[in-house]
Amino acid sequence: MRLNCDLGESYGRWQLDSEQRAMPLVDQANIACGFHAGDPLSIVQTLKLAKQYDVEVGAHPSYPDLAGFGRRSMTLDSDELIAVIQYQIAALDGLAQSQGINITYVKPHGALYNDMMKNRDILRTVMQAVADYHKPLKLMLQAGSDNSDINALAQHHRLTCYFEAFADRRYTEQGFLTPRGQAGAVLNAEQTLEQVTLLNQTGEVITDSGKRLKLSADTLCVHGDNPHAIAQLAQIKQLVSK
Amino acid sequence: MRLNCDLGESYGRWQLDSEQRAMPLVDQANIACGFHAGDPLSIVQTLKLAKQYDVEVGAHPSYPDLAGFGRRSMTLDSDELIAVIQYQIAALDGLAQSQGINITYVKPHGALYNDMMKNRDILRTVMQAVADYHKPLKLMLQAGSDNSDINALAQHHRLTCYFEAFADRRYTEQGFLTPRGQAGAVLNAEQTLEQVTLLNQTGEVITDSGKRLKLSADTLCVHGDNPHAIAQLAQIKQLVSK
Amino acid sequence: MRLNCDLGESYGRWQLDSEQRAMPLVDQANIACGFHAGDPLSIVQTLKLAKQYDVEVGAHPSYPDLAGFGRRSMTLDSDELIAVIQYQIAALDGLAQSQGINITYVKPHGALYNDMMKNRDILRTVMQAVADYHKPLKLMLQAGSDNSDINALAQHHRLTCYFEAFADRRYTEQGFLTPRGQAGAVLNAEQTLEQVTLLNQTGEVITDSGKRLKLSADTLCVHGDNPHAIAQLAQIKQLVSK
Amino acid sequence: MRLNCDLGESYGRWQLDSEQRAMPLVDQANIACGFHAGDPLSIVQTLKLAKQYDVEVGAHPSYPDLAGFGRRSMTLDSDELIAVIQYQIAALDGLAQSQGINITYVKPHGALYNDMMKNRDILRTVMQAVADYHKPLKLMLQAGSDNSDINALAQHHRLTCYFEAFADRRYTEQGFLTPRGQAGAVLNAEQTLEQVTLLNQTGEVITDSGKRLKLSADTLCVHGDNPHAIAQLAQIKQLVSK
Repeated sequence: MRLNCDLGESYGRWQLDSEQRAMPLVDQANIACGFHAGDPLSIVQTLKLAKQYDVEVGAHPSYPDLAGFGRRSMTLDSDELIAVIQYQIAALDGLAQSQGINITYVKPHGALYNDMMKNRDILRTVMQAVADYHKPLKLMLQAGSDNSDINALAQHHRLTCYFEAFADRRYTEQGFLTPRGQAGAVLNAEQTLEQVTLLNQTGEVITDSGKRLKLSADTLCVHGDNPHAIAQLAQIKQLVSK
Repeated sequence: MRLNCDLGESYGRWQLDSEQRAMPLVDQANIACGFHAGDPLSIVQTLKLAKQYDVEVGAHPSYPDLAGFGRRSMTLDSDELIAVIQYQIAALDGLAQSQGINITYVKPHGALYNDMMKNRDILRTVMQAVADYHKPLKLMLQAGSDNSDINALAQHHRLTCYFEAFADRRYTEQGFLTPRGQAGAVLNAEQTLEQVTLLNQTGEVITDSGKRLKLSADTLCVHGDNPHAIAQLAQIKQLVSK
Repeated sequence: MRLNCDLGESYGRWQLDSEQRAMPLVDQANIACGFHAGDPLSIVQTLKLAKQYDVEVGAHPSYPDLAGFGRRSMTLDSDELIAVIQYQIAALDGLAQSQGINITYVKPHGALYNDMMKNRDILRTVMQAVADYHKPLKLMLQAGSDNSDINALAQHHRLTCYFEAFADRRYTEQGFLTPRGQAGAVLNAEQTLEQVTLLNQTGEVITDSGKRLKLSADTLCVHGDNPHAIAQLAQIKQLVSK
Repeated sequence: MRLNCDLGESYGRWQLDSEQRAMPLVDQANIACGFHAGDPLSIVQTLKLAKQYDVEVGAHPSYPDLAGFGRRSMTLDSDELIAVIQYQIAALDGLAQSQGINITYVKPHGALYNDMMKNRDILRTVMQAVADYHKPLKLMLQAGSDNSDINALAQHHRLTCYFEAFADRRYTEQGFLTPRGQAGAVLNAEQTLEQVTLLNQTGEVITDSGKRLKLSADTLCVHGDNPHAIAQLAQIKQLVSK
């Protein structure tokens, strides 16, 4: 399993300082595109860091919502959502190429990610946005026990997917993430290592109801804005490299 | 002389309706990139229109200032200004390619345009931004009597320039535009046709002090948000095609 | 019945020109507060116009969404929504007082208005925001056949309501507005006059299914961005003044 | 001398954590109003903290520039600048009153502050904005050796001033702050204590050229986003209370 991390989530004066520590340890950097985080200069600096450590780069587009960090659902018409997603991919793509980097995938952010996983219409819209972009890009989304439905939909759009599991988030029995507002939604350091160890050995996690859930994942997401998770990145990398 | 026009300057609910009328008549569309105008969906719609009428497309980046329509000077550090310009070029470039359009030039907007013409440091920063973008793009800037200084600077950055004259703006003796706040800065219909006729026949305009000023221009700008100018586009096109 | 109109919905370069024509004819101006429209200077100019024509002024707060003109639902936590609404009321209140105007009511805008009418939790949050503001303000919301439920809830928050009907929007049998996306949602000139006449004479409208629906309304809303409606304002005013 | 601090400078996801530590130790909180920092909810939370510790509250308005944290000069026309400042004062004023706080002064932020101190036209515009607000508010600005010129101008606008010195910023001989970009512009911990001690004992500071400069200050500013300065707040408070 590879390691991916949401990076480039500073904005002007407000710097999240995880970048320097995380970039050397991850395989894939999902870089914010300016709509939930990421002013142009901080995006360029994150891209330079990704180049330095030879990390694969993906676009991390969001609903247009700086004040809410892209964590609030918004009801956009599908043609508008497609344009909003492609604008962000394009901005990152051109900046990346100007740094000698070729982006390879798209991972929607926050509420857009959650909405896409729960609502097939939104997932179709996201897929169309990525498929209609002028260069082939993979779509990164949430791994379930069985990804065949999503893979079929992706194939219809001639898209390839990356499926990711979460190192530091608790799962429900249905394979959703326990909502951030709920107690226990974000794992502490010990729980995170337990979840990563179990996932790596068995392909399973323990849900918030105590049951085992199989996840068919290509890549493991560690949240860039969770200081525990970043502090553990070296340990997590060792675990998944076994 | 070719005709260029600033287009794509709507934003969400606020639609400037000149697009449909102007696009069939111009040779070059300078399309807003989202920082002074242009939400993603309106940009896409403007690109489709440009494609339909086979109009050359350039990026029209601005200072980040929606409320001021990019008409207020802002003091950005040069590394930030480069990132801000490249982000906007990139966003338009990727959206354009996804519509089958290859953008060919960059024309800075509003206060950034004026600052670039008056301040060599800012001009150098703009040139570096365009030169360091990953694909070759021309820079469109204001024609003077003698463009050799700017051409030398451009050559240093391995850039090619388009020089433009303004159909509907009065000039000062020094070759600057009379500031918008001043009386007579924006020409009326009759004055516009006079200026275009004279410019096309002799390569000169009459300044606000009544003198003749030579302009070495490749292209003539008609302002997309000046209803008079748009109404005259067909006439202007005929004049410059002679 | 009084006449109310959403005004102050320009933003910087983008001016909606209905203000000058509408203000002399309406009784109540719902003025945008900067989150879906209304830059500070255009708000001040609208307030001066309201003062000139002695029009009652209310705050017209929105979800924070300029690009979407506040017409897209957003999921805000209730404490955040309260702060977002009160910030906007406060901004308009202080600007209005500085022009010698005392604002008297709050009318939520766009998607926030629709969400409030369909979701009791959001309505309670809006009511709490208005009730906890430091001065007494009425809440303007949509009239139904029977407003007693909403009045009871308002009384619980020690609020008084204005109930409004819409001159230029079609109703469903359930008393909702036919969604803007649907054909016939916005009435044409003739239909608008018919609806206003019937409403004024009988207190009823004809729904999109052809049935009669009673509306208990104190005030009639004419949309400031509907040119037909603005053009008819003088006629509408005459009808409701009978 | 009193202690003042710029607070409320978080924005959504991006939290500056100095608030909890600074508020109990300062006398005056300059609270961001949303244009360079401060989303509505974080403003409310900062106001509650100010109320809890009985801290005097002032509005801290800025140029409209979130991405640049209000640190970039912008050329606004004076009528627009007045509206922009009053909008921000109003927003904070109404939120503060709803928390039982009466704001008493205005301190411009960042580039607006610097521009006001260097340009009399901008100072006049700022004074007019504060003077024309509907309730009496003091204006906080930078102390010089002799404040009589500014006091005369303020009196013309019927304004009273607070003059502030800076605990953690180096001064030039002319009484300006050494620009942030230059080495030594922000004092380290030891230098800060030295400057505060000298200022408290003699009313003087040592400039970047090594000379002594008299400052006639009512209040001492400690920057809320300088971790050193915040860490030293207790010591600084002790020094100025002697």
